[in-house]
Amino acid sequence: MRIAVFAGDGIGPEVTEQAVRVLEKLGLDSLELVEGDVGGMAYRKHGHPLPPQTLETARSADAILFGAVGDFSCDHLERHLRPEQAILGLRKELGLFANLRPARVFPGLEELTTLREEVAREIDLLIVRELNGDVYFGEKGIRTLPDGRRQGWDMMSYAEDEVRRIAHSGFTAAMGRSKKLCSVDKANVLETSQLWRDVVIEVSKEYPEVELSHMYVDNAAMQLVKNPGQFDVIVTGNLFGDILSDQASMCVGSIGLLASASLAEGTYGLYEPIHGSAPDIAGKGLANPMATILSAAMLLRHSLGLEEQAVRIENAVAGALSAGVKGGDLGGSAGTRQIGDAVVERL
Amino acid sequence: MRIAVFAGDGIGPEVTEQAVRVLEKLGLDSLELVEGDVGGMAYRKHGHPLPPQTLETARSADAILFGAVGDFSCDHLERHLRPEQAILGLRKELGLFANLRPARVFPGLEELTTLREEVAREIDLLIVRELNGDVYFGEKGIRTLPDGRRQGWDMMSYAEDEVRRIAHSGFTAAMGRSKKLCSVDKANVLETSQLWRDVVIEVSKEYPEVELSHMYVDNAAMQLVKNPGQFDVIVTGNLFGDILSDQASMCVGSIGLLASASLAEGTYGLYEPIHGSAPDIAGKGLANPMATILSAAMLLRHSLGLEEQAVRIENAVAGALSAGVKGGDLGGSAGTRQIGDAVVERL
Ligand SMILES: CC(C)[C@H](C(=O)O)[C@@H](O)C(=O)O
Ligand SMILES: CC(C)[C@H](C(=O)O)[C@@H](O)C(=O)O
Repeated sequence: MRIAVFAGDGIGPEVTEQAVRVLEKLGLDSLELVEGDVGGMAYRKHGHPLPPQTLETARSADAILFGAVGDFSCDHLERHLRPEQAILGLRKELGLFANLRPARVFPGLEELTTLREEVAREIDLLIVRELNGDVYFGEKGIRTLPDGRRQGWDMMSYAEDEVRRIAHSGFTAAMGRSKKLCSVDKANVLETSQLWRDVVIEVSKEYPEVELSHMYVDNAAMQLVKNPGQFDVIVTGNLFGDILSDQASMCVGSIGLLASASLAEGTYGLYEPIHGSAPDIAGKGLANPMATILSAAMLLRHSLGLEEQAVRIENAVAGALSAGVKGGDLGGSAGTRQIGDAVVERL
Repeated sequence: MRIAVFAGDGIGPEVTEQAVRVLEKLGLDSLELVEGDVGGMAYRKHGHPLPPQTLETARSADAILFGAVGDFSCDHLERHLRPEQAILGLRKELGLFANLRPARVFPGLEELTTLREEVAREIDLLIVRELNGDVYFGEKGIRTLPDGRRQGWDMMSYAEDEVRRIAHSGFTAAMGRSKKLCSVDKANVLETSQLWRDVVIEVSKEYPEVELSHMYVDNAAMQLVKNPGQFDVIVTGNLFGDILSDQASMCVGSIGLLASASLAEGTYGLYEPIHGSAPDIAGKGLANPMATILSAAMLLRHSLGLEEQAVRIENAVAGALSAGVKGGDLGGSAGTRQIGDAVVERL
């Protein structure tokens, strides 16, 4: 079993280091960890945010543990050389089409969210975001119109098989939870959404037990404020999923604890904390590695089938938290290494 | 002075009726109100959600007071016949390119928001949303690809003059408030956003006093949860503005009080409550007409230059609220007519 470890930029290396310590502590004989360069640091070393050797490492592995990419000093670069292209490239090249973003308020951490406690307490949802299509990957450019004006343009689209695939992910997730699926689109304005909605309805026939509803994206953004507890599984496209999953994460208050999985067909997946590269605190040993450690647990469960070890890690994190080991983001004062120690110690 | 009154669907007629009573009570000699049909009811009467005579009425007026459109029984119609096309058509045909959506927690109503009081109290922001471009008005369709798959597609774009125009609206609004403007885009993925950002930066040169910042839309959705008080004026495109302005409105908790303006160059504008047609409570006399009444006040101020009368209305609404006259949406029990009475009485 081989895990590719792509630490990336900013706090990526610090938090990934602790997750690697946790994985090593498990003492799994057959587990091999291979590093690779991604993001701004890869651009500086190799001239590209996703160099071919990194992609090769990814392909040779069973799963990827990902830190973060993002580096303001690359803002001036052409789009295809910017750090974000590493994650977009991995998603596309490896067919990582289903982003699973659970959001749940951790017991005992209710005071961290800006939502009222009685509202926040009810949050236990999963956003299933499509990652391989939509306006993210359509043709795009900046052109000069016949009358001389500059125009920026991006093609938004979904083909039926792309929608079908992610719809199945959504329904499958719903079957494993409370059998409620809400599909979010903007079908009153977008033809892409109209096709999305039609296909989701087609697919729903195969899941008669799941109660399917549809919601416009603007309303979904409202309902996530008004009553986030109403949602169980949400399935949506790449762009709307980007916005709504970040909104939902912040509702939980403890973003330093939230992991995510980006899955291909089969067991292959990329696992990353949902926080970004946080350049402001990078290199200071202040970042909370728990989200990355929990991402490693997700990886063991989904890609390697190591449920028992995943639970061990999750319990160790929960144990550290209840013992009061909290990063600055959670209102505590524990540093990156100290949090890593606290988790490793409990394994 | 002529106001076109387009009541529309669902609760639209009820709430508009009360706003009209308020306008009439002002006793302005020179004020003429002309009704017109829009939305699902217009489709049923004339076969089109925005019949030519309605558009003519709009063109002959100085401003539009708009209720709401939306009617599930039209869901099966072709897109160009659905109720939403009325509002989209008016925006486009009349060049209503700047949507102003203020969000502020009303003193005394802090308990209505799902945000913690100390967070909600700080909210006082204005979203300036572009309304004439973006993926809303690009070419779109559902096509069959050469390999037989159906694909839904929508073209997203902004030309530089479209961005420049709304950027000026944003900077002008910022000059009238605390001189902070946050432009929201997704420039790390979209070329439309890259052009948007470039043009906003160009325009910023003309407003050296305004402090301009840029934020990705996913982060903006997060920050509106984490710390909405950090924002003053936000300027953004049609699609992102749709989502973020609804999110921000719900943060305020009292959506039945929120008015909005959609402005053309000059003084022409359309004014509407931000709540929709609420078919579930339509015709029951339960809807809160305050947002529509406050929209009428905005209309008097911006389109007719009647500041004094606008303030009179706003004070009357505030007076009714502090006297405890609250609709069901605000946790009270006052009906539509009763709220109208309470406001009229205080004029
Ligand atoms: C970095 C960026 C391209 C990316 C996205 O928009 O998908 C990020 O926001 C995310 O959600 O993983
Ligand atoms: C009805 C719909 C087309 C409209 C929009 O998306 O613009 C509405 O949501 C709004 O924000 O006014």
